[in-house]
Amino acid sequence: MDLSVIILGTNAALPTKDTITSAQLIQTNHNLYLIDCGEGTQIKMQQHAIKKNKIRAVFISHLHGDHIFGLPGLLTSFLYSQRKEPLQIFGPPGIKAYIETVLSLSASYILYDLMIYEITDVDTFRYEDELITVSAIPLQHRIQTIGYIFREKTRFNILPEVIDKYNLTYEEIKALKRGESIRMDSIPVHPDNNTTVLHPVRSYAYCSDTIYDESLPQRLAGVNTLYHESTYLHALKKQADERMHSTSHDAALTAKNAGVDKLILGHFSTRYSDLNPLLEEARSVFNNVILAREGLEIAI
Amino acid sequence: MDLSVIILGTNAALPTKDTITSAQLIQTNHNLYLIDCGEGTQIKMQQHAIKKNKIRAVFISHLHGDHIFGLPGLLTSFLYSQRKEPLQIFGPPGIKAYIETVLSLSASYILYDLMIYEITDVDTFRYEDELITVSAIPLQHRIQTIGYIFREKTRFNILPEVIDKYNLTYEEIKALKRGESIRMDSIPVHPDNNTTVLHPVRSYAYCSDTIYDESLPQRLAGVNTLYHESTYLHALKKQADERMHSTSHDAALTAKNAGVDKLILGHFSTRYSDLNPLLEEARSVFNNVILAREGLEIAI
Repeated sequence: MDLSVIILGTNAALPTKDTITSAQLIQTNHNLYLIDCGEGTQIKMQQHAIKKNKIRAVFISHLHGDHIFGLPGLLTSFLYSQRKEPLQIFGPPGIKAYIETVLSLSASYILYDLMIYEITDVDTFRYEDELITVSAIPLQHRIQTIGYIFREKTRFNILPEVIDKYNLTYEEIKALKRGESIRMDSIPVHPDNNTTVLHPVRSYAYCSDTIYDESLPQRLAGVNTLYHESTYLHALKKQADERMHSTSHDAALTAKNAGVDKLILGHFSTRYSDLNPLLEEARSVFNNVILAREGLEIAI
Repeated sequence: MDLSVIILGTNAALPTKDTITSAQLIQTNHNLYLIDCGEGTQIKMQQHAIKKNKIRAVFISHLHGDHIFGLPGLLTSFLYSQRKEPLQIFGPPGIKAYIETVLSLSASYILYDLMIYEITDVDTFRYEDELITVSAIPLQHRIQTIGYIFREKTRFNILPEVIDKYNLTYEEIKALKRGESIRMDSIPVHPDNNTTVLHPVRSYAYCSDTIYDESLPQRLAGVNTLYHESTYLHALKKQADERMHSTSHDAALTAKNAGVDKLILGHFSTRYSDLNPLLEEARSVFNNVILAREGLEIAI
């Protein structure tokens, strides 16, 4: 299946006249999953022709304004796009009071099923649908902050000779691909090495906002693509530590120690009009680095 | 003094990829006053190089999202513009809970003196500073909605012969201009026809959102410039009535009956990509009509 991330906003703290704060989308063949929702996210979705009704779930890292102030506008805008599908929102405690208070005071109409879940136990959190799973990891910031790891589900491809041998129907092939056993003329057929090829599972970790955390890499085991905040250059390491943010160097060190394939830097302080020094600093530690820029779609 | 309105957002309900919902600024020589604050208002202020620290007070018409969802972002952005001056916010009951809940849950730093006042008695509300007064009028919408009338203060210019006769100091002239009596060598000097020339007082009324209301013109007595919502063409009068909005025809009729000099139409449904039919419809009833467009500065 297709699996990519679409960047909508990359600024720390403040929008500029043409860029916004944190927001990005995980895109599969049929669904979108929104991660964080800074002010203006619904505007950026329009600018990039995103079909927002395809958003199936929203994952909020923490309650600082630059990650949530676009949420009320997005949720109420679905009234005008005739959204009927339910929407799940996950985030730290407080997210429910935030959304419910704002929607209630603004007398907003929500005509779809809006389900808000507060993640109280990060370690046991798990979201799952037919295509992906999402787990959570703790980040170290000034308020409770959650990182998310998106993993595609284990997928099997059926060997052609198995299809011929058992004369499998489309539904039976789909079941085997999902990893389920089927029964043909009383003979069980299992998804194993004799029948299927296992695809490597792709995964994406979202880590914003966090101070440099030595214990983070072990939580990122098996992650291919890492998005890590990179608010400052290392020259401002002291300020980064005080505000519990990371430098480009910190982000790259985490990527290196976690053994990921690819690092995406984001959450840039608006003091940097030229982001190349942030990129270069990270590349001096870790080879495969990309700057998150609005509108960029990056395969996972 | 200079007195103008600067339009930042003109959409009803939803932003588009390049326009936002309701927001505008009243501008005097030294101050700005913000009226309503749709999502993305702080972004539009950056695009139009507005010095947002000059905003002295904010007036919110009602709590629908397209009039308030930009407020948390604006209020927290002042942290980065080193705002020190106090800020007053006025709006209907609920505005205080909205702002305080959002700022508290988002752990926002507000380092200036933020004063939020709920207008419980529209008829007696009055804001006043050294340059302007603001009063409130009830509008007829689905939830409590307040219109605002901005009036410059009565200003006197001193006749040159009076200055000579009494050998007035700068401070004495300023006092007379403010309409205060002074005493020169035990002789009282009053701001009257013998000493001063009275300037006509300019005023601006903001009326969004409201169904057509026959009683509104009498509340607009003496207003020069009227901003009135014009969500629909009259072809959608039924829908306008149901949703308690106005048509361009309604807005123009109100302007005509109120005897204002100038009508500004705004709060357009995003169904209209071409706004000229709204303009033409209003002009068939009332002569002096302007379409509110982002970035437009209109003298009052």
